[in-house]
This record gives sequence, C-alpha cells and structure tokens, in this order.
Amino acid sequence: MVIKKDYKELGREIRKHYWDTVNKTIELFPFDDAETKQVMLDLPRAFGEDMADHGKPAEFPVQVYQEKLPKKVQEIIYMEPTKLIAKMQKGELKVYDVIRYYFHAGLFASMLTNCIYEFLPERALDQVKKLEKLQADGADMAKYPLFGLPLGVKEMIPLKGYAPTHGSPCHLDRITNYDAQIVEISERLGAVTICRETNVQSLMALECESWGHGLTVNPFNSKLAPGGSSGGSGATAGMRASAVSLGSDIGGSIRSPAACNGVYGLRSTLGRIPTSDYFSCQRGSQSIISVTGPITRSLKMAELFMKSIVAAEPWLMDPSLAPIPWKSPEQKKFRVGFVEWDGNVMPHPPILRGIREVKEKLSKLPNVEVVEFKQFGVDRSNEILGHLYFEDGGADTRAKCEATGEPILEQVHWAIDDAKELTWPEQWDWNIKKDEFRKDYLKHWMSYTNDNGEKLDAVIGPVYPAVAPKHKTAKYWSYTSLYNTLDLPTLVVPVGTVDPAKDKPNTDYKPANDMDKFYQSIYESADEYKNAPIAVGVTGMRFTDEKLFDIARLFANEDE
Amino acid sequence: MVIKKDYKELGREIRKHYWDTVNKTIELFPFDDAETKQVMLDLPRAFGEDMADHGKPAEFPVQVYQEKLPKKVQEIIYMEPTKLIAKMQKGELKVYDVIRYYFHAGLFASMLTNCIYEFLPERALDQVKKLEKLQADGADMAKYPLFGLPLGVKEMIPLKGYAPTHGSPCHLDRITNYDAQIVEISERLGAVTICRETNVQSLMALECESWGHGLTVNPFNSKLAPGGSSGGSGATAGMRASAVSLGSDIGGSIRSPAACNGVYGLRSTLGRIPTSDYFSCQRGSQSIISVTGPITRSLKMAELFMKSIVAAEPWLMDPSLAPIPWKSPEQKKFRVGFVEWDGNVMPHPPILRGIREVKEKLSKLPNVEVVEFKQFGVDRSNEILGHLYFEDGGADTRAKCEATGEPILEQVHWAIDDAKELTWPEQWDWNIKKDEFRKDYLKHWMSYTNDNGEKLDAVIGPVYPAVAPKHKTAKYWSYTSLYNTLDLPTLVVPVGTVDPAKDKPNTDYKPANDMDKFYQSIYESADEYKNAPIAVGVTGMRFTDEKLFDIARLFANEDE
Repeated sequence: MVIKKDYKELGREIRKHYWDTVNKTIELFPFDDAETKQVMLDLPRAFGEDMADHGKPAEFPVQVYQEKLPKKVQEIIYMEPTKLIAKMQKGELKVYDVIRYYFHAGLFASMLTNCIYEFLPERALDQVKKLEKLQADGADMAKYPLFGLPLGVKEMIPLKGYAPTHGSPCHLDRITNYDAQIVEISERLGAVTICRETNVQSLMALECESWGHGLTVNPFNSKLAPGGSSGGSGATAGMRASAVSLGSDIGGSIRSPAACNGVYGLRSTLGRIPTSDYFSCQRGSQSIISVTGPITRSLKMAELFMKSIVAAEPWLMDPSLAPIPWKSPEQKKFRVGFVEWDGNVMPHPPILRGIREVKEKLSKLPNVEVVEFKQFGVDRSNEILGHLYFEDGGADTRAKCEATGEPILEQVHWAIDDAKELTWPEQWDWNIKKDEFRKDYLKHWMSYTNDNGEKLDAVIGPVYPAVAPKHKTAKYWSYTSLYNTLDLPTLVVPVGTVDPAKDKPNTDYKPANDMDKFYQSIYESADEYKNAPIAVGVTGMRFTDEKLFDIARLFANEDE
Repeated sequence: MVIKKDYKELGREIRKHYWDTVNKTIELFPFDDAETKQVMLDLPRAFGEDMADHGKPAEFPVQVYQEKLPKKVQEIIYMEPTKLIAKMQKGELKVYDVIRYYFHAGLFASMLTNCIYEFLPERALDQVKKLEKLQADGADMAKYPLFGLPLGVKEMIPLKGYAPTHGSPCHLDRITNYDAQIVEISERLGAVTICRETNVQSLMALECESWGHGLTVNPFNSKLAPGGSSGGSGATAGMRASAVSLGSDIGGSIRSPAACNGVYGLRSTLGRIPTSDYFSCQRGSQSIISVTGPITRSLKMAELFMKSIVAAEPWLMDPSLAPIPWKSPEQKKFRVGFVEWDGNVMPHPPILRGIREVKEKLSKLPNVEVVEFKQFGVDRSNEILGHLYFEDGGADTRAKCEATGEPILEQVHWAIDDAKELTWPEQWDWNIKKDEFRKDYLKHWMSYTNDNGEKLDAVIGPVYPAVAPKHKTAKYWSYTSLYNTLDLPTLVVPVGTVDPAKDKPNTDYKPANDMDKFYQSIYESADEYKNAPIAVGVTGMRFTDEKLFDIARLFANEDE
C-alpha cells in the first residue's frame, strides 16, 4: 500500500497539515497573551513551504529560544521532569497548564529547528481531561507515576489514526488502528502524548532529513545535524520541549540524537520494553531488530520512565518481552572499562576529552575500578550488518520511494548502496555468523573478569567519532551499530560542551584509513562545532539496563 | 559442504561405524560375564545391514529387554536418577560401574529398537576418569550436581569431532569443532555423555526414520513409532538406557517422543538454556527457532537438570539467553486450564481419558482451581508455520538430499511439499503475522484472569491426537507446533497406559474434516496401541518453565 502521488505534492500536504496542527494547538492551548503568536511566527525558521526549502534557521537556535520564549513557559519546561510530575500529582501545578506551556515550547522549538512533525493537541486535551477527572476523583497517584508527563514520540511510532511514514511520504496512507504498546502503557500511567517528532528518510542515517519534513537542525548550532534517525526526538528533548521523547534504535538512532543534543538516551536491551509493534523499513525482519527507549534531559526521569514501564509488566501484553523486573541497585563496587577508539576511526578531540574526564573522575572514586578495554570485532560487526540490514538489497525501500518519485538522500545512499539481496542460505549463514560473533564478544568481555570473579560491569566509550556532525557527513556508524549487532544496552550520558580552547585539532595524527582520514578532514577547527554537546556511552551486558543508571550516577551532572 | 557419495553407501558406513562403537564399548566397559554379549547379539533386531532393512523387532521390545538384560544392570538403570547421582556423589556407587551398566542397557536397547546412532565409550571413559580423580581429590560435590549422570544426546547436537547429520548422510563430513554449550556445561557439572541418539530425516516429522539409521521403533510396541524428531532420545530414555536425553523441538520434537515413550520432556522457553549452537536444516533461520530440553523418566531429574544448567549462568557464555534464575516455588494456589481438543482433530480415547483423569485429580485438590480453556488460533498458527518453517520452500533440504540420491521420506514430504519459497517482504510479513498472533494469544490467555487478578498458571491438554502413532501416520502436529509458534514452554507428563477396556473407539463420532477423519480411521481398536503410554502436556506462559514442574507435581506419578 503505497500512495502514487508525487512526493513533492505529498510533502506540501504534510507541511499544510503541520500548520493546521499548530493552529489547533493555539486554539486548544492558547498563549498567555496576544503577542506571543506573532513572536513565534517571526522566529527564524528551519523550514519553508517546500521540503527542499530548509529555511533560514538562526545560527544558535537555543539562544533565540531562550530569548523569545515567554519566561513563564521557561519556568515550567526547565523544571526537572520528576519534580514536575510530583508537583502535578500533588496538585501544585495543573496538568493543563504544564501541557499548555510544553506545547508553546514545542511551537517555538519546531520553528527554530524543524524538530516536530506534527502536534497532537486534541489527543493531549482528551488525556488531560482524563487526568483532571482522576485527580478530582481522588485517584491514588502511586498508580500514575508518569502523571502529566509531556511525552513526544518519534514519527515512526504507531498512534491510532496516524500514518507512520518513517520519513517517506509514500506511506502516508498506512494509517494504523492501534497505539504502540509503550505509548498505551505510558498514557495509562499518566503521560500525555503531545507531538510526533521528525525522523530521517528510511530511518537508516545518523542525521535527520526527509522529503516528509525537510531538514531538522541541531538546536545548539544549526550548521550541525541533530543526529538521527530519531533526530527530531533528540532536538525536542534537547530544547526541553518534551520531558521524555521516545525514539527507536537499530544502528544508533536513539544514542546519536541523545549525544548530539546533550541529553540522556537509552538503547534498551531487546525484550525489556515493548517495541515489536513499531514501524520501520523491513518491518518484520528478524535479523537485526530495532529497540526503543527514552530520550530526556534528566537521568532521574529516564530511570523513572524505564522503571514505570517495566513495573507495568508489559510482558503480559507483548509476549516478545522477558519478565525481568527492574531491580534496585545492590552492588557496592563497580568495574568499568574505558575505550577511546575502535581501531578504525579516531574520535575528535572533544569526544576524547569527554571520555578522559569521566575516566579521571571515576578513577578517584573508592568504589570504582577503572579498566582499559580493547574494542573487539568492529569489522566483523560491520560486515554482518552490511548483509543483514537490507536482506532484500534495499529493493523494497527503493521501490516504495520510486512510486512517488522520492529521491534517496545522500546519507541514506551510504547505508543502502552496498546492500545485496541475499539468498535464503546466505541469510541463515549471516545469522549464524552474527550468533558466533555475539558469543565471541561475550567471551572477550568475560576475559576482563578479575581473579575474584568480579566481571566488567560496563564499558564507557564514544557514541560517535564526532560531536553533532555537520550535515551530510555522518558516514560512520560503528560506535553505535556494534551494540546493535550485539544487542547490548547503552545509556548515553551528556558530559559537557565543545571548548575551543581545550579541543584543538590534533594536527600530528596520521589517519589509519580513508574513513579515518575523512573524519580528520571534517575537524579543521573546534569553532565549527561551537556549543555542540559532548556525550559518552555506557554499555553493559544484555539485560543489565538498570546497572547503567547506577554507573551513570557516579559521574553524571546533577539533573537540572 | 555435502558429500557426493551414494546415500546407500553412506548408510552402510554409518552402520559399520555403529558396530565399531559397539565393540569399543564392550572393550572399554566389559560385560560382567562372557555370555552377555551373545545374549545381546541374539536379541530380535530393529535394524539390518542396510538402512532400508528394518530387521525383525520383537512385538514388545521392553518385555524382551527386561527379560534378557542382566539383573545387576536393571538394578542400576531402574534406580531414580537423582538417587543414583546422590549415591555416586557419596561414593556408594562407582561412576565407572554406573556408566558401564548404562552402556550395557544402551547396547540391548538399541538392538531392540534402533534408538542409538552410535556409542561414545572413549569420550565417556575420559570423563569417568576425570570424575574419579575429582572424587579422589575430595572435590566439593555441591559443584557437581550432575555427578556421573548418564547423558544421551540427539544426533543433531554438536559434539566436537562428530558430524551432526540430522538424519541425512550427506552431512557426514560436516564435523564440528565444538561441543554444544549445554553438553559442555552438563559435563562440567559431572554428566557423562554416553551416546548419540537417532533422529528423523530433516528433523521435520513426529516419527523416527532416516537413511542414516533406518527405523527406530517404539519400545513398548514396535508397530508404533517412538515419536520424533528426537525419537531415539525418547526411546532411549523410555528404556532407561539414559538417565537424561537431550532433544530439540521446533514443532513437537521433544514433546512427541516424551509422550510416546512414557517419560517427561520439557520444551523450554527459547532463551532459557543454550540451544543456539545446535544443528538443523535451515540452521540460522530466525523465524521459528528450535529449543532444547531434557527427556527423562524422572520429574525430579528433569527439574534437577534444568535447575543445574540455569544455576551455571549459561547467559555468561551464550548471549542469546535471558539471565533469569530458576526460581523456587512460592505460589500456594494454582489456576489450571484444561483443553481436550483444538477444534480440528479429536484426540483418541486414551488421550481424552488421560486428560480427564488429571482434571478429576486436580479438581479434588483444595489449592487448584480448574478452568475450561478454549484453544485459540490453531489454524492461524498452522498457516504461519506453513510459510515460515521452510522459508526457501525446502529447496536447500531437497538439494542436499539429491546430491547423494537420498529419497525424501513420506513423513517428511507432508511437512515440506506445500512449502513455497518466500520473497523478502513475504517473510517479513509472515513474521509480523506471527508477532500479532502471539499477542492475540496472550490476550486470550489473559482473558482467563479472574476478578482477583489471578492469572491462568497453565493449560493442560493433548500432546498429540494419539498415543504413539503407527509408523507413517503422524500427519498432524498442531497440538505441539502451536506452542512453537507461540514459544510457550510445555512439560510432557506421562499419566498411564492404553487400556483396551477403557479406551474403546467412539463409533458415534462424526469427523469435523478430512484430517479428523483420517485420525478417527487409524483408531479402529485400542488393541493396536497395546502398551502405549499416555501423556498430557502442561503449557505455561513464556519463561514460567519452573512453574510447570510445580503443577506437574500435583498429579504426576511418583518417580521410580
């Protein structure tokens, strides 16, 4: 089922619909005063009428945002979300007002960065009314741990009555008749879904451009990408226009935008929280499976979200999940590995500095043993993914785009062009290779066990060779995709911002290969990456998602 | 990698090798007296020189077995295995003697039923010597919960230096350089692997015939099959010639032989114990995945085995597993569903009687609530499996057999002939349908939750429409394969034996369809199924394997 209209026409329909939802939002959740709408309309825009028109965004959108967004809105959206929830539960803040201000933040944020695909004011208002009634009826707030939580969802996540296009307008008529299980649970626990966030064409790039929404830019520096594929979710969470955004990750799609936007992002273990009903290209393929997780500026919020979803026993609704409770931390001492590079592409100076600073911090803690970790099998992983991401050689994706004349983006070409259609025995064989690699990697990890039998608890390393990439440069995925091949959970933790004084290019460095050379070539000066956030990834063994939070707490900045 | 010789020649090589291992066994584990070998050689054989020659087995092999097998051997092999282990751990019995007698039992059992593919006397002797040394050195026996356990493994399970052919001699040169993880763990915990057990060609039939071993017959009645695909494992365990046999199950292959041979058999939840390194046709296919589990005459032994393997934390070696400990029972009250038929094929009278007797027994217990369960979605399951078992339309299996001229057996034709090669989008789509079906089934299961929120703990029903089938009649798999589509754990529990007085054909029954008619037609009289065991299956939700044991204990016969 693919629409046969021209992709440009479909793009214009999407843009028109976007404006309809803007107007509906202002109608149902009005601004405090008459001028605010005009302030919003006058913001430098990151989009035009046509999806090829990328507007004229501000150089540093967040600066404009903080200047123009009404102070009362900022008071609410900059409040740490678990505190915000507590205030709503106690009735100190009204859910309607919180959601209203979050909508206003979203309206501003999306003008500035093009991070929101559409707003959901009617859906949100229904839920707000339900929550108000619950509260009026004296409901037990312990049953609503996400009471009033402003939730954004990636465009590809199914909502009843909406079409998940994952960045290709040809899927505009694929309207789903259900809400994704995790959205359903979140709302049952009190969350309010306020918007759908932009994602890259085909979901197979670490940037955020599509013929369905245009180009999303990084809120901290519009010359940079917000990461991808959940780029809109990363930017929205980064601008505090959602308290939690839900992304999906098959090669780095939660971790890249979390890192690029200075927020936390969890690529959970497959089977921990519901994701099997999400949409994507090759949906149904069993070889490499996408997972979900929260993207948010607060570590506490990310953990509360995970804990709440798991406590809802989602395995009683989604049988693909393992019934593993979210365990409270019991461990007193941690053994943490550090890895700076994977042997292929040397990370840029700010990334190396971020890792070293965390390492230094942890080295000083009495309850942490720091271990040098050597990365393992990156080339094997790349070869496996090269064969298993597009089992059909990308034929299905290409054909669907061709039906509306939708051009494949350069960034997507990098992912799809080498893919070859597999025969059945070839696919089986690559899956065996994947299983063998997973086993060998586990053996490698276990080889770090010390003489007392204490295993390595986590490995901290780069999420990407660079901070937020310049547009059309995110070619190398292996720092994240390795953990998709392996299905290892990774929590992205923001640790700082590019500092031109500290992050000077290493001019002595001799690149190890062409890709390495390319990455060195795009870091001529730290100034080009001004304001970009720095992050590290904390990776654990399968199903140790909660431990990643214990470790992140050892070095993460206080949640603001 | 497929041998190009003629399959008949390969079959003769296998038979010759079988005799070589018989002789080696007698050399390393000699009989107590000189006559026993001749007694063994004079037994009515279930095989000849050629794989097409099925010998002249006794009508009731077990009767001959109990008559001819030396009494001292019987004393050992009829001892409940957990008691046997305890005696070996305490040094009251020598491991060497126990293994020696188990070998003798195997030699007799295999002459009578053709249940063993080959004996492993050298491997076993090495392990016996290790265990003897450990014991002499005063090792802590708590570390060896399977100390001296005589273990049989299905032919398709990899052992270092052996070729898993899964019933097709063309794979004789596919020699693996590793032991299956579960065998490695079992041996580390003290088990002694003594033999490889026969399995059906391609593993895709609930019987046990192949051009690699001939025909395995049911020990209780040689006109009947021992079930399959792990038919040899079922028959060996049924004759007590192994204390535990390891099978594999992708459509019923553990449950069918357990039921046919009057022993326990667990189809564990995928991800509980290691199985990812097993061999099969379409190995590597991710759509429907085979799982493993113990087949044994003792409920205690089956549980000890599972508990011991899980306690060894196999997820630290096989990353496909979920780190879920084997939990001790805490539950006091159980809600148990009963289902008699699936709406397609009415089970034969002994099966219905077995279920009803268990139901009556449980109805009388104060801590059990009996619930009528309506089976759900059997046709959907069949359609899904029809498309996903052989994603390539069976081309690979056919081509490999053709290379040596190996004819596809009638029973395998039933499984393979309707298979069509899928395109990639078709496979993705069938996997989505599978996921949706799993979700709907879970919803159905949860609909039995009572007003106090107490869920259904298990469903007890048929394992197959018949007791052990007559050879070349096992056409209908759905009583077992449904739970492969769903990945639900099932424990098979033996509950009795066919009784001609009680199990008369129901001549008034009007068949619902052609398959039902066929099954009615093959039950003309209970006499044809004389001595055949009756079993029921106890099925639970995913990852509730241990609860199935709690429920089985409520009605199972005392372990002998």
